[in-house]
Amino acid sequence: MNVEILCIGSELLHGDIVNTNARYISKKLAEIAIDVHYQTVVGDNTDRIKKAFGIGFSRADIVICTGGLGPTQDDITKEALAEYFGVEMVYDEGSYEHVKNIYMRFRRDFPQNNMRQTYFPKGSIIMDNPNGTANGCIYRGKDSEDNYKIGILLPGPPKEMEPMMDLKVIPYLKQFSNWVVYGEKLVVTNIGESAAEEMVLDIIKKQTNPTIATFASAGKVVFRITAKAESKEKCIELIEPVMEELIKRFGKDNAYLVDSGNVEDKVSQLLLENSLTISLAESLTGGLVSSKLISYPGISKSYLQGFVTYSNESKIKSLNVKEETIEKYGAVSEETAKEMAYGAAEISGSDIAVSTTGIAGPDGGSKEKPVGLAYVCVYFEGRYEVKKIHSSGARETVRERAAVAALDLVRSCIEKK
Amino acid sequence: MNVEILCIGSELLHGDIVNTNARYISKKLAEIAIDVHYQTVVGDNTDRIKKAFGIGFSRADIVICTGGLGPTQDDITKEALAEYFGVEMVYDEGSYEHVKNIYMRFRRDFPQNNMRQTYFPKGSIIMDNPNGTANGCIYRGKDSEDNYKIGILLPGPPKEMEPMMDLKVIPYLKQFSNWVVYGEKLVVTNIGESAAEEMVLDIIKKQTNPTIATFASAGKVVFRITAKAESKEKCIELIEPVMEELIKRFGKDNAYLVDSGNVEDKVSQLLLENSLTISLAESLTGGLVSSKLISYPGISKSYLQGFVTYSNESKIKSLNVKEETIEKYGAVSEETAKEMAYGAAEISGSDIAVSTTGIAGPDGGSKEKPVGLAYVCVYFEGRYEVKKIHSSGARETVRERAAVAALDLVRSCIEKK
Repeated sequence: MNVEILCIGSELLHGDIVNTNARYISKKLAEIAIDVHYQTVVGDNTDRIKKAFGIGFSRADIVICTGGLGPTQDDITKEALAEYFGVEMVYDEGSYEHVKNIYMRFRRDFPQNNMRQTYFPKGSIIMDNPNGTANGCIYRGKDSEDNYKIGILLPGPPKEMEPMMDLKVIPYLKQFSNWVVYGEKLVVTNIGESAAEEMVLDIIKKQTNPTIATFASAGKVVFRITAKAESKEKCIELIEPVMEELIKRFGKDNAYLVDSGNVEDKVSQLLLENSLTISLAESLTGGLVSSKLISYPGISKSYLQGFVTYSNESKIKSLNVKEETIEKYGAVSEETAKEMAYGAAEISGSDIAVSTTGIAGPDGGSKEKPVGLAYVCVYFEGRYEVKKIHSSGARETVRERAAVAALDLVRSCIEKK
Repeated sequence: MNVEILCIGSELLHGDIVNTNARYISKKLAEIAIDVHYQTVVGDNTDRIKKAFGIGFSRADIVICTGGLGPTQDDITKEALAEYFGVEMVYDEGSYEHVKNIYMRFRRDFPQNNMRQTYFPKGSIIMDNPNGTANGCIYRGKDSEDNYKIGILLPGPPKEMEPMMDLKVIPYLKQFSNWVVYGEKLVVTNIGESAAEEMVLDIIKKQTNPTIATFASAGKVVFRITAKAESKEKCIELIEPVMEELIKRFGKDNAYLVDSGNVEDKVSQLLLENSLTISLAESLTGGLVSSKLISYPGISKSYLQGFVTYSNESKIKSLNVKEETIEKYGAVSEETAKEMAYGAAEISGSDIAVSTTGIAGPDGGSKEKPVGLAYVCVYFEGRYEVKKIHSSGARETVRERAAVAALDLVRSCIEKK
């Protein structure tokens, strides 16, 4: 069984939006071990949509299609599918009620052109859409060479498509797969992408189940170890020895498991598990560390306070950084970073404080202190831990890298305790 | 002339990454008015890549392909292109020097399998890759029916692909287009997506050049008005009257032009133009407003200080919010929002201060104050402006909507001055 994903929408061909639907569907299918061989995008053009269905079914058993289920004349996905299988379109009372109820909720009459949304290829399984007017459908039928093919039609907006994929399509498709795919993520910090890959290249190469994939972003490398087996438990059995070996190679202080692959989630878990409170003093990162941490549900128990002290004055006034320190060493220095962290801890009364200071660019750099230079500092149990970072790249990259480094330093300090 | 974009990479089919390459290329082609009819994604599979080239060239004049230019046996894009056109692969001395230099920089020997990266379909235009080992190429030749077709091969990593697209491919393709496409963005706030669209539906429907496209995200709707003409000046002439009419319909206080479509950029421009300083008091948004503002280069002249006061204590201690106010009205109230903004302005000495307070969820809501309730407040020239917001949706949506509302309120207050 293999799938082609067909996304319909001119806005994708114009580059107005990124195709997150194809990614979402691919990911969900990977989890139940159903292969995707092609993804195709086509615009709102009747002739090309029909051709795309033909090509899709010629090379895949299942075509999952998003978009083109709306009420306008452009929305011809269902008709194209019916034509491919040579079946007629039939009226569905349930879909009529569904659309009517949505319009009644807004006290509007049922618009005549919405009748299109109540017709489906005869013999379809209709999938309810609690988040919009367009119901989806699954049609299974034979192609001209007498092979069974399945067409699955989903609405285009992600907030409508994703629940329908999760709640209807995946349970339906599970009958075609006897496998479970399960993965775990290892976050590696303090080691560059190439170096990290090289350290474990022999393991990556010799693995077939589990497989190991690498994703690098500012300040970290994420290794995803994925196994395929009859059950999740069997998958974990396959993953464990490989994971252990990877952690051994990178060192425990540089490598750790996080479901999401996000350092802020690891830090939040550690803070909450250890009942530690935290405060932040951000210059360079301007609230970025704070907004990452605060995205973790329940973190309000641990997060006391953040200071975004972009100007020298605010560092002095709000964090009690000494004027002489800034004059002597500069705002971007180990010394200022330390006083910022200390100030935040003292003022907020938090157990841990973390600070960032640096030069994001594009201007403001000098020979001694170039754009991309940053210091992050953690103050914890009377001790300072400072890390100096040199980043290249755009303003956003410099800030992101410093934010990840600051969070990772908090993690490391708590774990070393 | 029309293009098919062919992206090669199993990581796309597994849903590991989103296909930003297809979007980037589509967008760049739209700017020079070259149509894209299909985007296809295929894995690292020789047979399927060859078939995808065949289908691509059967329905497009130009196939632009990303990925598969690496040194491994899986990387067969160039070979597949050469096979399609029936030409041989030839050695390119320049590419050899290029790869060798990169390895020398890291004091390593030229690895034998990298020789693959020095061979190209005979007659190609080679495109240098300053950001990686894989050079790209453009090949123009005749298909089996004697039609001219063009194959363009680009590396897969975006940081290598994007500059090559901008600096080599776009200048090359311009010869096939006599048109310029230019667009402007109108940000609309305070009006919901459906309502906003309905207010101008007649204009959208009757327009063919310029066209109007709508994009909604938390707290705002962006209208992009795009014209196609012989020059940018002609495009602007076409756009202006439509833009004026749209602004008239929405009202000047709710609609404004921003290149990026980001409210924070408009606010930053207004702050800098009017030499106004700002400070922030964020509870609900936890640094999000701050990190948005700080992404604007040069904003350090205006941004004085931010307070992330998540706990009641920190609101009282750092922003001088009265304990009685929180006791009487609650932390999520108009009164607390006002005192937060006032405190930030007073402590930082800024001209403007903005505050946010609310309930992000998933827990913490009550009947009177449900999850999604938020207040944003601006204090400016001795006056308060407060906005109450009800958001539905996930934690991130609630925070994003409040952040956009806070920034938009700053904009409105400065403009009304």
